[in-house]
Amino acid sequence: MIGFHEGAAGTEQFYGVNPTTGQTLQPGFFAATKEELDGAAEQAFQSFAVYGRASGREKGAFLRRIAANLESIADELIERANQETALPKPRLQGETTRTCGQLRLFAQVVEEGSWVGARIDRAQPDRKPIPRPDIRSMLRPLGPVAVFGASNFPLAFSVAGGDTTSALAGGNPVVVKAHPAHPGTSELAGRAIRDAVRDCGLPAGVFSLLFDSGTQVGTALVKHARVKAVGFTGSRRAGRALMDLAGSRPDPIPFFAEMSSTNPVFVLPGALRERGPDIAAGLHGSFTLGAGQFCTKPGMVFLPEDANARSFKEKLEQLVNAAGDYHLLTEGIRSSYVEEIRTRQKHPGVQSVATALNSRAESALAVCEVLFKTGPACVLRNTALDGEIFGPTTLMVDDCSREDLLAIARRLEGHLTATIHGTDEDLREYADLLAILETRVGRLVFNGFPTGVEVSHAMVHGGPYPATSDGRSTSVGSQAIFRFARPVCYQGFPQAALPEELKDSNPLGIWRMVDGQMTRDRI
Amino acid sequence: MIGFHEGAAGTEQFYGVNPTTGQTLQPGFFAATKEELDGAAEQAFQSFAVYGRASGREKGAFLRRIAANLESIADELIERANQETALPKPRLQGETTRTCGQLRLFAQVVEEGSWVGARIDRAQPDRKPIPRPDIRSMLRPLGPVAVFGASNFPLAFSVAGGDTTSALAGGNPVVVKAHPAHPGTSELAGRAIRDAVRDCGLPAGVFSLLFDSGTQVGTALVKHARVKAVGFTGSRRAGRALMDLAGSRPDPIPFFAEMSSTNPVFVLPGALRERGPDIAAGLHGSFTLGAGQFCTKPGMVFLPEDANARSFKEKLEQLVNAAGDYHLLTEGIRSSYVEEIRTRQKHPGVQSVATALNSRAESALAVCEVLFKTGPACVLRNTALDGEIFGPTTLMVDDCSREDLLAIARRLEGHLTATIHGTDEDLREYADLLAILETRVGRLVFNGFPTGVEVSHAMVHGGPYPATSDGRSTSVGSQAIFRFARPVCYQGFPQAALPEELKDSNPLGIWRMVDGQMTRDRI
Repeated sequence: MIGFHEGAAGTEQFYGVNPTTGQTLQPGFFAATKEELDGAAEQAFQSFAVYGRASGREKGAFLRRIAANLESIADELIERANQETALPKPRLQGETTRTCGQLRLFAQVVEEGSWVGARIDRAQPDRKPIPRPDIRSMLRPLGPVAVFGASNFPLAFSVAGGDTTSALAGGNPVVVKAHPAHPGTSELAGRAIRDAVRDCGLPAGVFSLLFDSGTQVGTALVKHARVKAVGFTGSRRAGRALMDLAGSRPDPIPFFAEMSSTNPVFVLPGALRERGPDIAAGLHGSFTLGAGQFCTKPGMVFLPEDANARSFKEKLEQLVNAAGDYHLLTEGIRSSYVEEIRTRQKHPGVQSVATALNSRAESALAVCEVLFKTGPACVLRNTALDGEIFGPTTLMVDDCSREDLLAIARRLEGHLTATIHGTDEDLREYADLLAILETRVGRLVFNGFPTGVEVSHAMVHGGPYPATSDGRSTSVGSQAIFRFARPVCYQGFPQAALPEELKDSNPLGIWRMVDGQMTRDRI
Repeated sequence: MIGFHEGAAGTEQFYGVNPTTGQTLQPGFFAATKEELDGAAEQAFQSFAVYGRASGREKGAFLRRIAANLESIADELIERANQETALPKPRLQGETTRTCGQLRLFAQVVEEGSWVGARIDRAQPDRKPIPRPDIRSMLRPLGPVAVFGASNFPLAFSVAGGDTTSALAGGNPVVVKAHPAHPGTSELAGRAIRDAVRDCGLPAGVFSLLFDSGTQVGTALVKHARVKAVGFTGSRRAGRALMDLAGSRPDPIPFFAEMSSTNPVFVLPGALRERGPDIAAGLHGSFTLGAGQFCTKPGMVFLPEDANARSFKEKLEQLVNAAGDYHLLTEGIRSSYVEEIRTRQKHPGVQSVATALNSRAESALAVCEVLFKTGPACVLRNTALDGEIFGPTTLMVDDCSREDLLAIARRLEGHLTATIHGTDEDLREYADLLAILETRVGRLVFNGFPTGVEVSHAMVHGGPYPATSDGRSTSVGSQAIFRFARPVCYQGFPQAALPEELKDSNPLGIWRMVDGQMTRDRI
């Protein structure tokens, strides 16, 4: 889908697969050829001259139109996504709502307009020894952005997901590489965007969608001279490979990957005493949500040396033992899960304390839930135990002393989130733990669970490497727009040649920093 | 200078050199050993637990103390810098003022406090289908930052320069690698900072200063596990090498290099007609300022096919022919300059149209000014002509048609600045040229000159690669602080455990985004 044109020049074809039945889904999809990819990138570049200068109002209308187009095909979209991913329909309904809500949130942001961070330092013609010129700056788009759809959120982090939405909101044309696990869903979402491009009278190249079952199209996109930034959600291995590729270009480009996170949870003594079994139930819901295929899945749970830990552990074991099957999204995820579970089962320092009965579902992608347990010494010795396992499993680390918790926190890699369950007294008692965790993650959760990432203004879905490729960014929430923008300064410009955002009269009524003071006033 | 300790464990010693006389300057400086470097990085890490949580008021007092300490040794600093760099004393006086002004600007920013971009999305306990938790976020520091001093601004972009200041303002400890061309100046500035650390009762590791005449200390710093970000100003070759090193770490870190820029100037027909000779005089002042060793030096000047170009060219040739000698900063810069000039002189498409008489100064670092000329076709064929040459030279490209100018702009690499001289009518006529240039640079200058970079809120000293390693950043002005900070989100936190910036009562009175609206009110 190159601009308004649908190409099928490729020879290689691939199909979606129903994870529940293992059935191949029609129709087939063609991997994009090099010429098709060049065409998409070139059209994106051509369209940038116009789309990069679209007003907030125009971009807002476009994003709202995408949302409306998605809603008008919601039934079809959910049906197809359900076939391709085996995610339950209510979840997919929720994800559609989220996707459209996210489009409308960014529409609001660009319509309001203050996100550009306009700054004006007025001229000081009488300054000594030399006059100061008039200096104004604001954020401007980067150019064509390549977006990689993720497998685990076929709508909200895929073709019309957060990366695409924030890039488009910022004024950047987008070329999406669809995830091969849900090509039909991708096509439907892609058409909704393409139709919105047409409906809004925007240049065709503002949006293209490329298919590929392998890595060729993705790597070629990251290396393409016309591509000026990348948004990626996926595995650490793939993310790092593409990140290195982006960095090794003759002209390295910003590369934003959200990759790998184990999202440690610390249950402190007061919380265990007050509501141990409730936390266990909430945690179980969290690490099995979406079959444990969320980037914010809590994959490690730390428990103090405390008699009250027993009721927590009993509850958790009971829930795991009673659980049914889960269907994973792809054969790749399933085989990784099975392999990781086996490795962990053989680990001399780790016990498998509860396993859901395998109902022997017929699906090749069915797996069962496993709960592991180890002690703090083992975690401190084995960095491998920090690693993310996609699927319904978690690792309890019990009998941790206060010093163990601090030592473990100090050696954590970057994660998207860390969670603390505690009382106010626990928080005071463990202020040092909190201070360490703050340097390791993008989001600290108190008395909640890390899954369920709100799309809001204050959300941070990021964190130091390897959680992301650039811990200074978020891929969820309205701050995601900042990834695809850069400041541009206009010195000594006459009013007529300035962007609306920087004119004295402040025609858009946005917040600006004028001589260091925030104001919405005209000058 | 590792925290409060001055080490001299190294065996290798090097000296400053007076560029005017070639004389070696006492005392010698020891290259830091691996142990000294580890000590500096480890102390920086240790100090981060305290300094990363210092209040804006504390950091402001610290930055103001550094400025006061520098002012108290200004005479000694300027004397030594003059010996080591041959830059004239009035310029060094100005640079001292700039350096102290920059420290105080960042003090203001952190004392005022709104720079952290606090955002609060209040809980919605009644939201359907699930309640929304309370979500708050703000910028937090990254951790120890390595800073590379630049040779061409021995004060403002060196030990106590913009990178150090913005990193410290953000709450990051700093380890500086001094530039070997001005070790004595570096030591004086380093002591001023170290004394301020002590005066303000901060942990020793907040600041360290390492010396090295080679590349070993620098590369080890960029690879050091304790270092979490890097600020660099220097050549494209060195910048790219260190950038690749930062990207190839097991945990890649943000790397901000300001590297290479030719700062194209476009003189449009109306401006030529109205004030050609004046522009020529201004341009001459700009490309020879600091002996042409400014990163914003205009290294290419484009002139239209226009009879009025003659008086511009005559004036420029006359000024070049009448110029005296310039002393470059280092033997490395001198030999590069001489080699680049020779290469350009031999270029079949380029003419050397004016050369200052060589006064045969005795200094080994004296060079003379050269003005080159070529046509648009030659520039379009030879990308090498875009390259930065440090030193007093520029390249005129004359007889450019409108289409030539657009074609040349389209194939420009990233630069720090682009300048347009024109009338209001020129601006309307060449709006498409302006639109292209905006995508290539960090700062557009109208009817001015790119040298002289104001340290203000709206300044952008950045631009797409290779001007910088990350075109989304600026290394000058108060926005430079954003390089060394990342957003952290606090979900469901009780008031007592929140940072001051995010408490309901807004005790710091800062601007915050509450439920999407900017306000300084308490909640």
